[in-house]
Amino acid sequence: MRNVILAESAGFCFGVKRAVEKSLEIQETYGKKIYTLGPLIHNNDVVNYLKENNIFSIELDDIDSLNEGDIIVIRSHGVPEETIELLNKKNLIVIDATCPFVTNIQKKVRKYSDKGYNIVILGDKSHPEVIGINGWCNNSAITTLNGEFDIEVPKKVCVVSQTTEKESNWKKTISNLSFMTKELLAFNTICSATEVRQKSVLELSKNVDAMIVIGGKNSSNTTKLYQIAKEHCENTIHVENSNDLPKNYIENANFKNIGITAGASTPDWIIEEVMAIMKNGLK
Amino acid sequence: MRNVILAESAGFCFGVKRAVEKSLEIQETYGKKIYTLGPLIHNNDVVNYLKENNIFSIELDDIDSLNEGDIIVIRSHGVPEETIELLNKKNLIVIDATCPFVTNIQKKVRKYSDKGYNIVILGDKSHPEVIGINGWCNNSAITTLNGEFDIEVPKKVCVVSQTTEKESNWKKTISNLSFMTKELLAFNTICSATEVRQKSVLELSKNVDAMIVIGGKNSSNTTKLYQIAKEHCENTIHVENSNDLPKNYIENANFKNIGITAGASTPDWIIEEVMAIMKNGLK
Repeated sequence: MRNVILAESAGFCFGVKRAVEKSLEIQETYGKKIYTLGPLIHNNDVVNYLKENNIFSIELDDIDSLNEGDIIVIRSHGVPEETIELLNKKNLIVIDATCPFVTNIQKKVRKYSDKGYNIVILGDKSHPEVIGINGWCNNSAITTLNGEFDIEVPKKVCVVSQTTEKESNWKKTISNLSFMTKELLAFNTICSATEVRQKSVLELSKNVDAMIVIGGKNSSNTTKLYQIAKEHCENTIHVENSNDLPKNYIENANFKNIGITAGASTPDWIIEEVMAIMKNGLK
Repeated sequence: MRNVILAESAGFCFGVKRAVEKSLEIQETYGKKIYTLGPLIHNNDVVNYLKENNIFSIELDDIDSLNEGDIIVIRSHGVPEETIELLNKKNLIVIDATCPFVTNIQKKVRKYSDKGYNIVILGDKSHPEVIGINGWCNNSAITTLNGEFDIEVPKKVCVVSQTTEKESNWKKTISNLSFMTKELLAFNTICSATEVRQKSVLELSKNVDAMIVIGGKNSSNTTKLYQIAKEHCENTIHVENSNDLPKNYIENANFKNIGITAGASTPDWIIEEVMAIMKNGLK
């Protein structure tokens, strides 16, 4: 008999859940087609589900195709200050579903850059959350992907982190900044949901024969979960949903204990499907 | 022929030089016996020289033996806020020779403890400078000797360093605090004179057969110089002055290149004596 164990913390985080629910609620209230600025979350299944509910993704470049009074939702990642100004100027109805933890980072970045601190962001500079945060200090932030810096860092620095970063990267960033700066103000803005999820997967992956990490292929927090799991369990795979499960994986008799985790954008129904197949095989 | 090489940066630092000169100047101006609150610096030879110049050390416990209008100098280490209040209450003339870099730390600790930060000091809690700094946040600071913490650290921390700390200890402190805190304000208050002196001794000690570190046996910054030198040069000794030089050390024919450094409390005349003996032998 096979054990399929779900990590203690997995799946939708607070911010994503809130953005999805808010969009569905707004759509229902207004009873018309509404838009999200970019895919609401990094999960194709959810994006399709939203489409069926009259919620469509639109890119900023195509914003001119909208009409005054159209409803646009800002997703949990948040956006630069100037984007909000632009949407308001176009007289769209802007629903801000930015995760409150991200809003908190944006406010800190605005406050301390105004106070003369140079902003450093630990994170992926091409990730929407980081682009958004950087947009609250006039795009002046220095970004680092892993805590290393190939340019000179100013002496007075305020550093924040993308919410989905690894603790080890944060530690390295602060450690390196400690002797590059004279005044260092560091806000550990790694989301505790991310932390808890990462700690759960670390524990689980040490004690199973195989690990399945579910989440969008372009989801930052899912990729981090995959990296952590892979370090401790060689048979780790990353799938978007149950369709991605390899046959030889489902049927592998050596896998007695199988661990499951999922990124913040993965809805419960996808997790449940994967668990059922790994337990009972394909029907 | 022997080479005796003085480290690029060695001896009296700015703050100590200032305190000694200020005391001599004040004594000369008033033309009477004056007092320093504790030995002005960690060097017996200098303390004796000051005595000859009518400048005497007195401990806080004996302060009642002074009369109104007596002059008392606060040394470069600084003192707690309450000590200054006490001296003023006794109607003594207080001359503050606290090193301006230390005053800066005291002000920061006062400012940010008032703003709700919990203060952490990297340094030796029994060292007068640390006792002084701690006295500017109602003695509420958590101290760490090496960056490790055996108690729970609050989530909002402002951390400063004793001026004579090693960079490696600072890095370790910040690194450990990075994941213990949510908001970390770190002022790297290691004095640049200390840094430069430590870097000089590091370089020098790699390239000599023997190292002599001159300074008071109870001087924190001298002890750090000794530790750094000893790591890279086995034949490292710590002396207070030329009288401490071992005979077999002075006459050792294997010592072709001898490095010299000195702590912040060591006056030039002592350095010169040691260098002369190591170069020319005892007369």
